[in-house]
Amino acid sequence: MSSQAILDAHYMARAVELARKGLYSTHPNPRVGCVIVRDGEVVGEGWHVRAGEPHAEVHALRQAGERARGACAYVTLEPCSHHGRTPPCAEALVNAGVARVVAAMPDPNPQVAGNGLRRLREAGIEVASGVLEAEARALNPGFLKRMEHGLPFVRAKLAMSLDGRTAMASGESQWITGPAARAAVQRLRARSSVVLTSAESVLFDKARMTVRGEELGLDEALTALAVSRPPLRVLIDGRLRLSLDAPFFQAGPALVVTAAGEDSRYAAAGHELLDLPGSDGRVDLPALLRVLAERGVNEILLEAGAGLVGAFARQGLVDEYQLFVAGTFLGSDARPLLDWPLSKMSEAPRLKITDMRAVGDDWRVTAIPLPAPGV
Amino acid sequence: MSSQAILDAHYMARAVELARKGLYSTHPNPRVGCVIVRDGEVVGEGWHVRAGEPHAEVHALRQAGERARGACAYVTLEPCSHHGRTPPCAEALVNAGVARVVAAMPDPNPQVAGNGLRRLREAGIEVASGVLEAEARALNPGFLKRMEHGLPFVRAKLAMSLDGRTAMASGESQWITGPAARAAVQRLRARSSVVLTSAESVLFDKARMTVRGEELGLDEALTALAVSRPPLRVLIDGRLRLSLDAPFFQAGPALVVTAAGEDSRYAAAGHELLDLPGSDGRVDLPALLRVLAERGVNEILLEAGAGLVGAFARQGLVDEYQLFVAGTFLGSDARPLLDWPLSKMSEAPRLKITDMRAVGDDWRVTAIPLPAPGV
Repeated sequence: MSSQAILDAHYMARAVELARKGLYSTHPNPRVGCVIVRDGEVVGEGWHVRAGEPHAEVHALRQAGERARGACAYVTLEPCSHHGRTPPCAEALVNAGVARVVAAMPDPNPQVAGNGLRRLREAGIEVASGVLEAEARALNPGFLKRMEHGLPFVRAKLAMSLDGRTAMASGESQWITGPAARAAVQRLRARSSVVLTSAESVLFDKARMTVRGEELGLDEALTALAVSRPPLRVLIDGRLRLSLDAPFFQAGPALVVTAAGEDSRYAAAGHELLDLPGSDGRVDLPALLRVLAERGVNEILLEAGAGLVGAFARQGLVDEYQLFVAGTFLGSDARPLLDWPLSKMSEAPRLKITDMRAVGDDWRVTAIPLPAPGV
Repeated sequence: MSSQAILDAHYMARAVELARKGLYSTHPNPRVGCVIVRDGEVVGEGWHVRAGEPHAEVHALRQAGERARGACAYVTLEPCSHHGRTPPCAEALVNAGVARVVAAMPDPNPQVAGNGLRRLREAGIEVASGVLEAEARALNPGFLKRMEHGLPFVRAKLAMSLDGRTAMASGESQWITGPAARAAVQRLRARSSVVLTSAESVLFDKARMTVRGEELGLDEALTALAVSRPPLRVLIDGRLRLSLDAPFFQAGPALVVTAAGEDSRYAAAGHELLDLPGSDGRVDLPALLRVLAERGVNEILLEAGAGLVGAFARQGLVDEYQLFVAGTFLGSDARPLLDWPLSKMSEAPRLKITDMRAVGDDWRVTAIPLPAPGV
């Protein structure tokens, strides 16, 4: 590894760190960080805070001021080249007179897609790309999935016992996991564009599926950002069973997805109703994901029971599982993790367990579905 | 922490490391290591290899020779004071003229129980105890449980999917986990005094429950030790369903535990039959554990299905769970981890998850049952 490559990785790591500050607030935009370095000194740092506000590069250039001239700019995503809600960052970098731009990865946004780097090159700026690309991609799983596949990234959260059960047969389930796990779930909600649940889930425990600032376990600034940009709460209620008096609806406007046809009472109560019946008479989940992506939804936190999560899983719509495992056995009569009947081992889906770590007294398992053999 | 305490911990850590070499061969004796230090130099090291052979202290004293005079001896367990199959080690330390003895913990063996340290003190030797005691206890969970409670330590091994299932409803189950997990299970067998299984488990997949040296993943010396001292294979077969032609019986002599009465065919085939009916007509598991402890069994590896492991679990007879988790879902129709029906969360047993770590492509979870509240 050359000295230049080592330095590039070093400053890009700092840019990734800055980008992470936007974890709870940039959506539908990507999280982006920028570092400007001149003569071995960091002269500007910036990160994108919220859609409609300046991009990371603009913050960093403002901080650098005249010192940006001849400097190197590190950005976790290719600078934009199009006029969106803010002017193109490639232009700003050219105007500031930077000599070199290092991007972690190209922007898959079809409005950018290489045009930003090309614009820089045409202006005589030295351009490099692909530094800490994996880390940069990990910042924006939802934005990238939406740009590359027209779908949001679906993260399924489940709380289970060591024997893989989510609730007693009766439905009794609350407080399987402890406060640290609940704070982790709050942060998963806060980083998501949408929290998606089912009528069955909120019926039983009167859940509101909101982000509660005091439970996030974040510092004041990040907490303020997170609660200023709460996720849209989406309820799947195929037969419109959940009463509009339920705490879920009292907690604020929601999107209700049904297969039961229009019902004007929802709009009257401040909620949106979307009728998306599939051929089986249930809600068409792939169609719902496409609709949400069109609305700029990057990450979805799927927080529901074995029924709805099982339906997503069976249809191959889950991108990541976050399993919170409590140190208990709920026993062989308890509810399964997923409603997903299989009869042969050859039908069993394969997953890569990417992480297991302690969260308070509980443990958190991250697993990614693998493509079926031959697919 | 005083300089002396730091040095004591340092040398005791080495003694613990030496003791671990006996993991696969000392039973029914405990694993013990010894380091002899004079003037800041290690002059002797030893570990107990096999019952009937010299204790750790004797090996270390032999290596130290004359240099043991005035030295400090670090031992992971209080030196013995009784004439067993070998002369008492306390006597050997006195005769060698050591000036100081540091023991990690007292020997709970009622034949020792403080007498070893007392003998040393009476001989004018400076004695300390309680250095790295937790690490020393962890060397010998079975020996300590047997000495302190008259029972063996029961380690239940289960291989499960991420959704907590062990096999398909049909019983199909082989190769859930990969080669690294299988090697880890081989090592768990090899360290145990007994591998305990059920007729149902070996019926289905023709298992022999043996230790296979080439699958241990250990170096040549440890492999040789391990295979020279294989665990006793114990089969629970309440109704004597497993044919004497089964691979399990062909693999060598076994102990068969039943509730069906005597049957001379087992002895004729080289196996021992033990009739231990409980009041419910099934094998009396607590009685079996007492019998095995009386025979010097330290650690039991319980390798069976949801039925037998569930029975042990329900009766509070499991000391540690080793769950090997494969990255797959076997689905909601698959077999449960344990046959243990519970109806209320308040009945759910609590466990402390002490470790989760990657083992090849699989993960290994260690969990310890916690006492029920108020017990």
